[in-house]
Formats: sequence, C-alpha cells, structure tokens
Amino acid sequence: MKYSFKNDYAEGAHPSVLEALVRSNLTQQNGYGLDEFSVNAERIIQQKMKNPKAKVFLVSGGTQANLIVISAFLRPHESVVSAATGHIFTNESGAIEATGHKVHGIENTDGKIRPADIQKLIDVHQNKPHQIKQKMVYISNSTELGTIYSKKELIDLYQFCQSRNLYLFVDGARLGHALTAESNDLTLEDFGKYTDAFYLGGTKNGALIGEAIVINNENLQEEFGFHLKQKGAMLAKGRLLGIQFEELMKDDLYFDLAKQANEQAMKIKEAFKQIGCDFLCETFTNQIFPILNQNQINQLSTNFDFYVWKKLDEEKAAVRLITSWATTNEIIEKFINEIKNLK
Amino acid sequence: MKYSFKNDYAEGAHPSVLEALVRSNLTQQNGYGLDEFSVNAERIIQQKMKNPKAKVFLVSGGTQANLIVISAFLRPHESVVSAATGHIFTNESGAIEATGHKVHGIENTDGKIRPADIQKLIDVHQNKPHQIKQKMVYISNSTELGTIYSKKELIDLYQFCQSRNLYLFVDGARLGHALTAESNDLTLEDFGKYTDAFYLGGTKNGALIGEAIVINNENLQEEFGFHLKQKGAMLAKGRLLGIQFEELMKDDLYFDLAKQANEQAMKIKEAFKQIGCDFLCETFTNQIFPILNQNQINQLSTNFDFYVWKKLDEEKAAVRLITSWATTNEIIEKFINEIKNLK
Amino acid sequence: MKYSFKNDYAEGAHPSVLEALVRSNLTQQNGYGLDEFSVNAERIIQQKMKNPKAKVFLVSGGTQANLIVISAFLRPHESVVSAATGHIFTNESGAIEATGHKVHGIENTDGKIRPADIQKLIDVHQNKPHQIKQKMVYISNSTELGTIYSKKELIDLYQFCQSRNLYLFVDGARLGHALTAESNDLTLEDFGKYTDAFYLGGTKNGALIGEAIVINNENLQEEFGFHLKQKGAMLAKGRLLGIQFEELMKDDLYFDLAKQANEQAMKIKEAFKQIGCDFLCETFTNQIFPILNQNQINQLSTNFDFYVWKKLDEEKAAVRLITSWATTNEIIEKFINEIKNLK
Amino acid sequence: MKYSFKNDYAEGAHPSVLEALVRSNLTQQNGYGLDEFSVNAERIIQQKMKNPKAKVFLVSGGTQANLIVISAFLRPHESVVSAATGHIFTNESGAIEATGHKVHGIENTDGKIRPADIQKLIDVHQNKPHQIKQKMVYISNSTELGTIYSKKELIDLYQFCQSRNLYLFVDGARLGHALTAESNDLTLEDFGKYTDAFYLGGTKNGALIGEAIVINNENLQEEFGFHLKQKGAMLAKGRLLGIQFEELMKDDLYFDLAKQANEQAMKIKEAFKQIGCDFLCETFTNQIFPILNQNQINQLSTNFDFYVWKKLDEEKAAVRLITSWATTNEIIEKFINEIKNLK
Repeated sequence: MKYSFKNDYAEGAHPSVLEALVRSNLTQQNGYGLDEFSVNAERIIQQKMKNPKAKVFLVSGGTQANLIVISAFLRPHESVVSAATGHIFTNESGAIEATGHKVHGIENTDGKIRPADIQKLIDVHQNKPHQIKQKMVYISNSTELGTIYSKKELIDLYQFCQSRNLYLFVDGARLGHALTAESNDLTLEDFGKYTDAFYLGGTKNGALIGEAIVINNENLQEEFGFHLKQKGAMLAKGRLLGIQFEELMKDDLYFDLAKQANEQAMKIKEAFKQIGCDFLCETFTNQIFPILNQNQINQLSTNFDFYVWKKLDEEKAAVRLITSWATTNEIIEKFINEIKNLK
Repeated sequence: MKYSFKNDYAEGAHPSVLEALVRSNLTQQNGYGLDEFSVNAERIIQQKMKNPKAKVFLVSGGTQANLIVISAFLRPHESVVSAATGHIFTNESGAIEATGHKVHGIENTDGKIRPADIQKLIDVHQNKPHQIKQKMVYISNSTELGTIYSKKELIDLYQFCQSRNLYLFVDGARLGHALTAESNDLTLEDFGKYTDAFYLGGTKNGALIGEAIVINNENLQEEFGFHLKQKGAMLAKGRLLGIQFEELMKDDLYFDLAKQANEQAMKIKEAFKQIGCDFLCETFTNQIFPILNQNQINQLSTNFDFYVWKKLDEEKAAVRLITSWATTNEIIEKFINEIKNLK
Repeated sequence: MKYSFKNDYAEGAHPSVLEALVRSNLTQQNGYGLDEFSVNAERIIQQKMKNPKAKVFLVSGGTQANLIVISAFLRPHESVVSAATGHIFTNESGAIEATGHKVHGIENTDGKIRPADIQKLIDVHQNKPHQIKQKMVYISNSTELGTIYSKKELIDLYQFCQSRNLYLFVDGARLGHALTAESNDLTLEDFGKYTDAFYLGGTKNGALIGEAIVINNENLQEEFGFHLKQKGAMLAKGRLLGIQFEELMKDDLYFDLAKQANEQAMKIKEAFKQIGCDFLCETFTNQIFPILNQNQINQLSTNFDFYVWKKLDEEKAAVRLITSWATTNEIIEKFINEIKNLK
Repeated sequence: MKYSFKNDYAEGAHPSVLEALVRSNLTQQNGYGLDEFSVNAERIIQQKMKNPKAKVFLVSGGTQANLIVISAFLRPHESVVSAATGHIFTNESGAIEATGHKVHGIENTDGKIRPADIQKLIDVHQNKPHQIKQKMVYISNSTELGTIYSKKELIDLYQFCQSRNLYLFVDGARLGHALTAESNDLTLEDFGKYTDAFYLGGTKNGALIGEAIVINNENLQEEFGFHLKQKGAMLAKGRLLGIQFEELMKDDLYFDLAKQANEQAMKIKEAFKQIGCDFLCETFTNQIFPILNQNQINQLSTNFDFYVWKKLDEEKAAVRLITSWATTNEIIEKFINEIKNLK
C-alpha cells in the first residue's frame, strides 16, 4: 500500500494520549466538560499563556470550533473577513453562512491577510445599513498554504482590529506547527495577548479528536456554554477531550510532536531544493508545495499518495505534501531517495 | 431644492395607480393575497407571458423577493452564484446569508455573468461535501450597472443552468426598463420560458411598493405561500399589491412608464456625448454612468443631486444618474442646458 | 354579497390616509425611511408618549415586526415566552423559529400571561446550558381573544421582567383598540414607560399597511436599521409608511378610528346579551366571541361572514366577530336586527 | 467519594473498545468517514437490520444527530412533533429551533406519544399557510422516562405517519437498552422497517463517543454528507467512530452491555419494590424513578449521587437512578443493602 502524505490525520493518536485514556478509563467523572481533566487542561493552557482570565472550551473539530465561535460572537447583521483561501471561506460547505453570517474572502497569494486588505474591504462597505457591517477578522496560523504570521504581522493585525472595532479570531488547527516552525517568532503567550480568541488544534497534532478554543476577550466568554450545547458540540463524555489535552499540554508533548512533523517536512523540502525544485510558497511548517512536472508527479505517485494542489501550466503543477508526528524517519528516507531519482 | 437623479423611487406612485386605490377602497376583499385584484393581476401576467402554469406572488420589495425566493428554493447545503456587483452580494446587508445560504460573487465589468464564469466557479468547488454545492444562478436585468442581457445571452445562461442542474432566477427590480430599452431583443414571454423564476419590479416603475414574483418551474411553486408568511411578506391587505399590479399591467402602463424613463435617460446620455464625455459602461436603460472631472461634478451638483459612483483617478469619476417615469421634460431640458455649459 | 365580520382588514385605508398619499405624491423624498414624513411620524409618536428618546421604525406588517424585533434583540441561545394563544406561537408559520429562536407557549384562558406563569416556566428551565435561556416576554394588547391588560397587570409584568432580566415586548397590532376600550386604564405614555419595545398597528386601524415599532430601551435601538434591511423590511418608498402614520397620529385619527370600531362591536355584544347569549371571554374591544348554537350560526351566516372560532360541544360553538373603522351604522343595525330574530 | 447513579456516561469506554482503538492506531486511513472501519460498521448494521439499502452516518453525540437529521430532512416551513418530555423539546438548548424549525411538544405522562395526540395537533394547525406544516414525528426509545415502545405502538405510529405524510425519526441514544429490556418485543430489524431514520447510541452504551445515524428512507439519504460537514460533525479522524461501532456491533457487544445495564437497574428496582416503594412510571430499562420521602433521599445520598427528578408533594419526590455497563455487582449489592435499611 502507498504511504500517504495527503494529510496529517491519517493515523490515530499519539501513544501517550491513548495510554492516558486507558489509564483513566474507569474513574467516574462529571459530564459535559466538567470533568477534572478538562478543568485541568484549562488551567495548564492558562498557565502556559500567562493569562489566567482566558476561558478554554474543548470541542471535536475545526469546522465546529469555527462555526460556534463565529456565530456566538457576531450579531445577525455582522460579517467576518477571511482570506479567500481560508478554511471557512472555501472548505466548510457553507458552515458559517448556515449560521446566518456572510464571510468576505480576500484574494491573496500566501494564505495571509493584512490590515490594508481589510481596510479596502471596509471602504467599499460604507453604505450602511444596506451593506453589511464587518465585525470579525478570521485568520489561520499556520495558513492553508503552510505559511505563518510573524509577531509583527499579528500585532499589526490586532491593533488594526482594535482600532476598527473588529474581533480577531485565529484558526489554530495547525497552531502547534506554526509555533514550532524555524522561522517563527510568536509564542503561545502572544496568542493570549493579541487575539480575542483562537484555538489549539489537537486533531492534526497527536489527539484522536479535539480543538481547544481559548477566549481571551472577557466580554465574549459569557454564556459560551449555551452555544456549545446548541450546536451539538458539548460531549457527554467531555473527559475524552480533557484527557487528551491534559496529556498533550502538561509536558509540551503538543509542541514536541509539531516540531517533529515540521522537521520531517523540512527534510523533504531540502531534498526537493537539492534537485532544483521551486515551491508555490516558502513554508517552514508541516505542509510543503513543491512544483513538479507531470513525469515527476507520476514517478512519485508509484509509492506515495499526495494531492496535486494547483495546475500552473500544461506541464507543471504544485503538489501538497503533509507530514505529521507519525511520519517515521524510515518513510522520509525512502521518499527522499525517490526524490533524488527524479528526472 | 435640488432635483434628485439619485434613484427611481423618490416620488410616490403613478397617478393612475393611486386612482385605482381610491376607486376600490371601500369594497371588502379577502386578505393575504386572495383578493380579486391579486388574482386578476396573476391572470394578466400569465396571459402576457403566454404561460398559464406560472404562479405569481406579490411582495413589498426587492430584498424581500430575493431572500424569500432563494431560501425557499435552496436546501441548506446549496449556494447561489451572483455577479459581485449583484444586489444580493453587496447591497442587502447579508439578507441571503441570514437565511443560511452562501452567495458567490463573480467579478465582472458590466454587471453581467456568463456560463464560462459560472463553470470556472463550479470547477474549483469539486471537493464535495467539503465545498458547498452551487444550485442557483442569480442575475439582474437590467443590471446594477444599467446594462441588459440579450436574448442569446439569456438563452445561453438558461441552457447552461439546465445542463448543470442549476436554477436561473432573475432580479427584475428594473425589468420594465430592460424590456423597453432600444437595444433590447427580449420579451416578457422569454422570461416565462428561459428562467425558473423572476420578478417584475413595481417600486421603481410606477407603484408605491410591490414586486411580482413569477415562478415558472412548477416544482418550485409548491407551498410557496408558507415562505411568504414565514418571512413576514404576506400582507393582510394584499389588495394593496393586487390593485397596483392590475393597474400597471392591464394596459401596458408598466412598459409605457419604463420606456418613458429610458427615453429621458437617453436624452441626458446624448447631451453628455455631445460634449465628448465617456461612460463607465454603455447603457440604454434609465441608469447612465458618465465620466466627469471634479469641476464638472461640482458644477452639476449646484442644482442637481446624484451619486458619485466610482473614483477612476485623482481627477475623474463616474457618476450615476437615474431617471424615472416621474422625470419631466422640463427637468430634462434644464439639466441638458447645464450639461452644455460644462467646461 | 355577504358582509364580512371575519377581520378588520377587509377594506382599504381611511379616506384621510389616501388623501394624504395623493397630496404628497409627486414631491421627491429620501428613500428607506429617511423621508420627512417618517421623521415627522417619529417625532409625533415620541411627543404623544412623552418619551423623546424612543426610536420609531415603520414596517409593513405584524409578523414582520415580530420577527425583526425578536431576532434583533435576542442572542442565539435566548428564547421568548408567549401565551399559547399568541400570534407568534401559533399563527406565523414558524417565523420566529425560522430566525433561530424557541418560542415557549403558556396555556391560558383569556389570551394573557402573568408573572407566576412565566416564573413557573423559568423554574423548569434551570438546567443550564442544556436548557435554553428565557430572555423576552411577548404579549399582545389587545390579545388574540380581544381582551386587554390593565395598568396594574402591565406594570406587574414589566417589574417582573426587569427583576428577571427579561425584555418585555408588546404586539400592538390592535393597540389602538386596547387603548380606547371602555374598560382600559392604560395610556400610550405607559407603553413608553413599561415596555422595552412595542408596536402601534396601522394595518388593522386605518392604514393600507404599516406597523410603527417603538423601541424604548436605548440599548436595543442601536443598529436596528441593519435588521430591517436584512429581513427585507426597509421599503425604498418608506414615505408610504411615513405619510400614513403622520396622518393617523397627528390629530388622533388613530384613536378615533379604534374607538369607533370598538363601539360598533359593543353594540353587537349588547344585542347578543339581550337575547341571553354567553361569551367565550368578556371583551371591550373590536373582537367579540358570542357562544351560539348551530341553528343560530346557520341563520346569521345567510347574510354575514364570520369565523367559527371554537367548538365547545356537539351543539355550541364560540364564533368570532370583528368590526373596524369601516363598519357602518347601517350594517350594525341590519346585523342587530338579525340577532334579535334568532331563536 | 460517592458513587454516581446520575447518568450512564460517567465512565470511559468498554475495555474492548479501547483495545480496538489501540490495535488499529498506527494504520493510515482515509479521513472523514471513508476509513475501512466506518465502512465495515455500516455493513454490519445493514446486515443486522437485514436492510442493505440503509445508509449509516456516524456522529459524535445525540444533540448533533438530532439537529442534523431534522434540519436535513425538513424544508424551512416544516416542523417536528415531539413529546414535551422529548430531548429535543426541552434539553438541547434550542438546537432544533436554531436550525430554523419549530418543535411542538405534546404533554404526556410516560414519555411516549400516540397517533391520536399527533392528530389532535394537526387538527389545530389547519389554517395554512398561517400555521406551520407538521412534517416529522420524533420519538425516543427508550424514552427520557425509561419507558419503551411496543412493536404494536411503533407500527401504529409508522403507519399513521405514512398516512399523514410525516417522517418518523427515532432518537436511539438508549436504543440498546430498549431492545434488551425484558418487556421489549421490538428488534433492530423492525427499526429498519418502521422508521424513516433512527440512531443507535454509543455514548451511553460502551463507546467513548458516537451515535450511528441510520437512514432507511432512500429519498432522505441523498447528499446527507453535506449536512454533516456543514454542522461540524464530519470528523477528520472518522476512524474514531468507525472502530468503536465495528467493535460494539460485530459480536453483539452493544446488546450485551445494554442488557447488563438493564439487569443492574432491575435489581435496584426489585429492592425498592421489596420495601413497598412506588415508581413515577414502570420501566424495564436502565433508568428507574422510585418515589421516596425526604428522609429516604437524605439517607441514600450519603454514599450515592442521583438526581431528584420531580417533586410530587411536600414530602415525596421521584428520584432518577441510572445504571450502565460499568455498574458493578459490588456497587449494586452495596446500594441494595442501603435500600433495605431505609425507614
């Protein structure tokens, strides 16, 4: 069977996470997120962020996190601004609109948006109330193109949002990978300071399922539990999420796993560079987008699975390769050998 | 006081419409669209379209018509494709999204969309069910830029929609103006044949309020009344709409008024052409977009009101001028004189 | 043809209202509720209420008013409490739920609800966040059964709502009739003091269409225009509503018409009492519910139309008779004669 | 620490389920429910139901299952009928209404609804389109009161629904317990024949999380995946659900666990009967509702946790006791001893 580089959720959970589930299995716990593990996971995240006032809510997946946060924060006449490449704009089957809110998509080349882009959008929506009111900015870090925001970029965005009365919400399905990229200068603490809310993705980084929504803005914390319940996100056995996040966060396993995934991707990237390959965009996380010709794609497809991401011309296309904490050295070596043999 | 060319709804109703309201005022009628006038208006529209199976539903305004038709026709996971200049995409404060549906906006220069544009959009939404399913195409005729669709263009669009299993819905807030433009080759009958649904706008063409939604596709007619009621569009005194549409349609007053509005606009257009003016786009309906410099704008603004539509550079901008059935020859002459005096 | 007592919207508008429309027809006005008539109508209502901080928004109909107010005021996890006989609970085709909010229906015998009923409902919804949070109380005055709230009842409800952090919203589709009933002790001023919002119904009291939403609670006024637009309620020719309410309110025509309608109903009620009839509930407004046997119903149905409201047993049923400002003395005399002849 | 009889989700998963997760952990699988375990789980359920045309969709929890099924099946103007004790009516924080649909609650004493109740509701909703259209009946089995439907009752309901053009949907959060109760005469096969859709609850019967939605009605299967995605229910690692349901269903572990939970409850019930206790309703599943006086409640609360379900008078209340597959014989014996010692 081919080895898949198609995504970072092809395997189960990191063994330590499974062990934690087994270990705690028969102790009785409160339901609905009131178990001791969930409470503890919140405390650990608050401590690591140095933000004891933040509130943490554990949910099953990214689309769920996005739709609950956005619909809970916005009033009916308010919209959210995203990159046109953003997950909520293009890959959630209209989940945000289904809660009643327009998503604006800003064209871009690197998965990121800047204050000037947002200002331009606001400028052409001045005919109130005929045009909708922008109230939130949604970004992903790392982005859907594997790129990351710098500290300066995040602070600029946050200050811009503050000045325009916009919330800043970060989709962190791959926040671990962003924070452990070699080019990164942001910390978890920064996300506690320079965002209204964000989430730490577990599904793509060692957990079976789970994203930890962190709400910094105290005005937005109130009655959030109702929204979890109403959208079907409040698990009876919330312990399943609590145990996993406690295990991932308590000794930085979360960051170790992400770093390891990034390093495997960087090895592959280096191998492609060695043979003179270009990339759709320069990335330092667990997603890389080398540009290959059709022959090369065919050759690599014999033993490996991956997505052809974007046709560039008749001959060439960017492919997407994703590594995870479960990608072994053995696989990487085998793949690099095949890269070296590409014509 | 300045005379306003800002829109085509600055005055009340055509006097014949008011007279019809006065004439019928004290007869008792059934409520909720079951009055004899509404029934009669439906019959007249069916006859003029030569489509006796069409159903007609009278509502108060365009945004209301759009949101009810779209939310009644689509299932939760289906989206609608519009020009990025389309009223539903940019000028209805998120009304469509508030009913749960995504609106895709297609960039354009003339307010119109073509099959190739729609196909391109469909092509990048093939990752089902992660990406939403397109199920309807929304166009305006005349468009928000005053342009109109030719018969060939409408048929091409309809056939494309049929082949892709998409509904075609036409916002006809200014359909009267489109159908009476000198460059037009479409008829009301064509709209009964080459669309799933459309509406005839009354508000901008002689009525106090009112748009007549026409549903040709028999599968979509069923239980439509529930949607009218649920969205607050079913007037207790539906007679108010019935009387107006009966009066406008029975002797083609509707088309006479639109034609008259177009002719007044064409006189202004000719005057601008005489002084060598360019236009944002070539139009033959009651909206024109001459490109003026700031001095010219200032001069004309002394006695007349209109919108500066789009800045083109430091010096020049396109302005929007709209005429209506109520625009008198006297006003047109006065305005043309001022155009002639522009430097 | 039979004369209809089925409802109070079978005729058009009071002649003075039509005259006001004719009189102002050709003056140019701003669109979307910014016309001088709407502005003036707001000022008059503020003055009559002695509440200059109230905001007034004119819309087409009652269901529209209800759904916009409720969805604008509530957050997604909040619900509204109504009488089970309330219009929003049973007669708006799920309009409120379609905006995402649960409506609780409280059983009752007279169309009214009291603090104790609401408290009981709150008491069985204490398992937060699994059970929804009640945030608004909706009442109608006059109610769907023609009854009215006393001053003490309204103040009690408002104080209860204040103490429980609930909004109080009054559906005033027939508020004119309530305020002019002989048993009434409330004033328009009281509605400016003891409610968060209410509306003055025009459709059932002299207007062609139109309800004037009055928002007293300043926190709820903000950005309300967006909601009007998004729900399709912002008429391009808002003047249509402004002119009518200015005419109805400026010299108390609104209250004169309602009083007249009530008086006609009271004449009929007296006639039924004379022949020993019982009533479903005692009312002093323009709706009466005499209890008749099948023979009597058949007799009266020969020349008059009305609804059989509620079967009481094999033999008897309550019928509903509604009068309006347009019900003439001649009709009333004719009907009373027929009542006298009942066996 | 007290032992809790408050619910059946206080522990983790059955050990066999955890072992299956561990066993399969590092094999790569397709995401989003296309893994081999989910495919296999569907096949097993089809076989046990003898309904190869049924489709199975695995989701995280019961509220999620309810809101997705109901919003996917209904059009905007359609409502769902439930017992007033039904989970969707009272315990999901308005989840169904948040998708736009009204839920009607039918008063009852045993958690069940019958055709006559539903017909009565339909009868008072005949004023179409002002009153909403009922299109679905929702029941729970076992119910929120621990009772179950007999085969005759289910068939009667289904035939009634068929004759009235209503869908029948069964919330099976505790379907295992219903099907293994000593008084039960229904089979899984019956649920494949006499419902449009239902689900098999895993969360309360051996799984960490998971409910298996089964759609029998082929017209309702189409494009269901979009709804899962749009509501945030499509897990990237769908394997988590597939592995659990394969393990639970392949050798009837699912039914063994439910039966065991029921038996533990029956032992407690017998002990209460021995001391002459009455019950709120007679149940044969894992929920029992003995009626105790305050002294007895206090005594039992020393070492055990449970909910006081319903106050009956000053002195007496019904308490709710729930057992699960994880309730040991040792605990049962200890509890029964305490019952015997009650005064």
